[in-house]
Amino acid sequence: MRILMIGDVVGRPGRHCVRDLLPRVKENYCVDFTVANGENLASGTGFNEKTANELFGYGVDALTMGNHVWDKKEGVAYINRDSRIVRPVNYPPGTPGQGYAVFACKGVKIGIVNANGRVFMPALDCPFRRVEEAVKELQAETNCLLVDFHAEATSEKIAMGRFLDGSVSAVVGTHTHVQTADERLLSNGTAYISDVGMTGPYESVLGIDPEIVIKKFRTQLPARFEVLDKGAAQFNAVVIEIDPQTGYAVSIERIFDIHQL
Amino acid sequence: MRILMIGDVVGRPGRHCVRDLLPRVKENYCVDFTVANGENLASGTGFNEKTANELFGYGVDALTMGNHVWDKKEGVAYINRDSRIVRPVNYPPGTPGQGYAVFACKGVKIGIVNANGRVFMPALDCPFRRVEEAVKELQAETNCLLVDFHAEATSEKIAMGRFLDGSVSAVVGTHTHVQTADERLLSNGTAYISDVGMTGPYESVLGIDPEIVIKKFRTQLPARFEVLDKGAAQFNAVVIEIDPQTGYAVSIERIFDIHQL
Amino acid sequence: MRILMIGDVVGRPGRHCVRDLLPRVKENYCVDFTVANGENLASGTGFNEKTANELFGYGVDALTMGNHVWDKKEGVAYINRDSRIVRPVNYPPGTPGQGYAVFACKGVKIGIVNANGRVFMPALDCPFRRVEEAVKELQAETNCLLVDFHAEATSEKIAMGRFLDGSVSAVVGTHTHVQTADERLLSNGTAYISDVGMTGPYESVLGIDPEIVIKKFRTQLPARFEVLDKGAAQFNAVVIEIDPQTGYAVSIERIFDIHQL
Amino acid sequence: MRILMIGDVVGRPGRHCVRDLLPRVKENYCVDFTVANGENLASGTGFNEKTANELFGYGVDALTMGNHVWDKKEGVAYINRDSRIVRPVNYPPGTPGQGYAVFACKGVKIGIVNANGRVFMPALDCPFRRVEEAVKELQAETNCLLVDFHAEATSEKIAMGRFLDGSVSAVVGTHTHVQTADERLLSNGTAYISDVGMTGPYESVLGIDPEIVIKKFRTQLPARFEVLDKGAAQFNAVVIEIDPQTGYAVSIERIFDIHQL
Ligand SMILES: [Fe+2]
Ligand SMILES: [Fe+2]
Ligand SMILES: [Fe+2]
Ligand SMILES: [Fe+2]
Ligand SMILES: [Fe+2]
Ligand SMILES: [Fe+2]
Ligand SMILES: [Fe+2]
Ligand SMILES: [Fe+2]
Repeated sequence: MRILMIGDVVGRPGRHCVRDLLPRVKENYCVDFTVANGENLASGTGFNEKTANELFGYGVDALTMGNHVWDKKEGVAYINRDSRIVRPVNYPPGTPGQGYAVFACKGVKIGIVNANGRVFMPALDCPFRRVEEAVKELQAETNCLLVDFHAEATSEKIAMGRFLDGSVSAVVGTHTHVQTADERLLSNGTAYISDVGMTGPYESVLGIDPEIVIKKFRTQLPARFEVLDKGAAQFNAVVIEIDPQTGYAVSIERIFDIHQL
Repeated sequence: MRILMIGDVVGRPGRHCVRDLLPRVKENYCVDFTVANGENLASGTGFNEKTANELFGYGVDALTMGNHVWDKKEGVAYINRDSRIVRPVNYPPGTPGQGYAVFACKGVKIGIVNANGRVFMPALDCPFRRVEEAVKELQAETNCLLVDFHAEATSEKIAMGRFLDGSVSAVVGTHTHVQTADERLLSNGTAYISDVGMTGPYESVLGIDPEIVIKKFRTQLPARFEVLDKGAAQFNAVVIEIDPQTGYAVSIERIFDIHQL
Repeated sequence: MRILMIGDVVGRPGRHCVRDLLPRVKENYCVDFTVANGENLASGTGFNEKTANELFGYGVDALTMGNHVWDKKEGVAYINRDSRIVRPVNYPPGTPGQGYAVFACKGVKIGIVNANGRVFMPALDCPFRRVEEAVKELQAETNCLLVDFHAEATSEKIAMGRFLDGSVSAVVGTHTHVQTADERLLSNGTAYISDVGMTGPYESVLGIDPEIVIKKFRTQLPARFEVLDKGAAQFNAVVIEIDPQTGYAVSIERIFDIHQL
Repeated sequence: MRILMIGDVVGRPGRHCVRDLLPRVKENYCVDFTVANGENLASGTGFNEKTANELFGYGVDALTMGNHVWDKKEGVAYINRDSRIVRPVNYPPGTPGQGYAVFACKGVKIGIVNANGRVFMPALDCPFRRVEEAVKELQAETNCLLVDFHAEATSEKIAMGRFLDGSVSAVVGTHTHVQTADERLLSNGTAYISDVGMTGPYESVLGIDPEIVIKKFRTQLPARFEVLDKGAAQFNAVVIEIDPQTGYAVSIERIFDIHQL
């Protein structure tokens, strides 16, 4: 079972990059199931029905989220109507949407969990506790489990990876929009990477026009962040091979591609 | 001119990893000048005369610092006595030590600047302004300039890289202890990487024993962080080749090695 | 039923101020039951058996805590051995100590809840949810309920007051060490104040020697915070009168006294 | 010389409260000069020409600001056109507006400085250094000086008060929207209060509808904050009497009034 996990897809450049590259990537890497982080799908912040369905139309099977999940009101309204969307599990009870879900793929059940970090991030429930509970629930159905831990601090991410090592197939980080070079199999069989990176405009700052971001840092005046809508796009992802019998990871490989839109 | 920049060296495992690997790395990569981030040299937090000199003895030419620079009192007392140590330039006027320095190497002058980020970090002077001033000063002497931007947020790091693109030879990030896979030459000739990574215990969380860190996240009780003192060590660095005539970067290459101590 | 709530007692000056003033305050204000926030009892940060017992010996009936509760290791070890100590209820399950407790006083049962804010504070469970659960439990026993909400942000504190308005007798804030002038009865019968203030050295910065704090802000260098051990002490508290039949508050009155130690 | 300093005026209820109460307050307290914090003038966040002029029309002589100063774009555009508006002095060089200004009143020159804290606040220049510089400049013209230190943390505010004690007439805190009860003359003649409080809707959370704020804390979902537009308003201010010869404060008195709009 080979799962492709695509890093935060940012705005139109990110969506079009998925559209143009996904078919070939799936073929080249023999991908069975595709997950993408969708918290920046719609104009760089949040998602809505249209952009989610756009991604599903391009061949994405599941969308995970993050701290920007609720930035578009339409997303809040829509999330309960599409079972392929998984938002951070550590929002309080009663939050719209689901924190984990099971997908069927070629006779194998795949459990996907999404969680949000708490270091330098919103005040949510403990991600370690909530993920532990979700994993326990999911293990009754399958041992093929992927956790997208959407977090800022590398300490929290690596701690989560090691905490879950041996209990899940893979822990992949998202949120920083920069791919890390620490992909590996941990000692007890879990694939790990601190951050999958970003799929979006290549000459940007996390997807945003650099002029705007630099000016904001230098002036501390408010600025309207806009997705950079010119130049090439980058495609950031990892492919994880999982032994469907044991749920252990066999390999994890980074993908970093640049694409002229 | 080939500069080796080693990511945050953590405690004894980090120092011994430098001791054992540096000679071969220098030879393999034809290194002319070696910089290491030393904010975690002494028992994982801060530095002192002994550990700084240990690194210099192993062949390091300059030490940069970060938010942990003052964690050992001995370091505060010592910093003015060794001109090879560069601490973040954006501490207030009057702070011990220097924020930038010029080193001579094989007939070439190399300027090293260190700065600390402000996002999720201590309240210092604006790093963009202070680095801009330092670069202007240094450009009177040399155009071979390396900036170690010690920061948490990828947005601030990439913004700094793009802000300085064309003005300095390289902007390398440190602090997260995780090497990123985004090394590249920016459009105007500056080499860039968001984080060089960590040189220290491989099976740790940023250098620290994982048991301690996981327990701390789960219980929120205070914990004494201790450097993991067993198992292999990882060596994280980049080699940057600079054209000494123009100061532009020719290449940047990541190094990730694992070493049995 | 008249409850005296004393603001964060800081170090020896704070303890001695309680020793010297409490008997007269109790008499003057016809106090039936005395609570003190004890998170800064021992040398300004944390508590231990000795300093807790010192306060109990001076006539305090219950001690609440806050974000500094675990700063002294002895406190962590001791907390389960004294049922008069209440630590924030929103620490994770399994944390030593108790988040709420019932005390008997002149034939009336008094429930005390302690909680920690999350804005600019450690990442704990949701204080609103945990306090709501505690209040539900306690209401089975008594409707004479005092909540010490130890928090930084006035928004979170006032929101908690209004959230609990009508369900508890009083919501009193602690932590900022500055008494606020907004004491009042809320619309549904709950007494409220954003912060009770500090009992400790009068010419200090939150209990600490001003020279040290000012220098730290100006230099951003590490500093060892020490309780100011000279000059007068201030006594900060509120007296809340509760109707023991209904649990509603009848009045809340601030106390601000200065005492030569 | 008697200066009235009005705490953060929030939205229409705050503005109308000033309109209705200011004349009587001025008369009762023999006010010579009136300052108001205006960072929340326009719909609770930011200011614009219309709302600033509304306040000036009601008898306010100077407006200070805070972290919300730029929330309305019109304010950014307008600020250079009205010399009665003072924004935080510790914004970077080149920021629109002025950080301090001199006003003439009954033959006396009054210097007003505004600064923003850095603890739990935006990353600006060091407020201690910038205020120190501003005070030095102003002292060439007058020793009748008022500093509005707009900050969150009580430690930073009290440290600023003690740092400036003896150099300025008064240091008054704003931002928390809750009046503190610690008004006093410091040892060297400077009047001090940690927070002047808020002028705005009485049954709100910092001016905002409590339902919205409580829901936001409990759900962590995004919410549109709206000024509570019903019920009574509160008027929060202090009156500081200054000896115009020496610049020392003679007294500081809190005002807390409730007004049916
Ligand atoms: Fe993202
Ligand atoms: Fe994110
Ligand atoms: Fe480090
Ligand atoms: Fe660091
Ligand atoms: Fe305290
Ligand atoms: Fe506290
Ligand atoms: Fe305000
Ligand atoms: Fe403010």
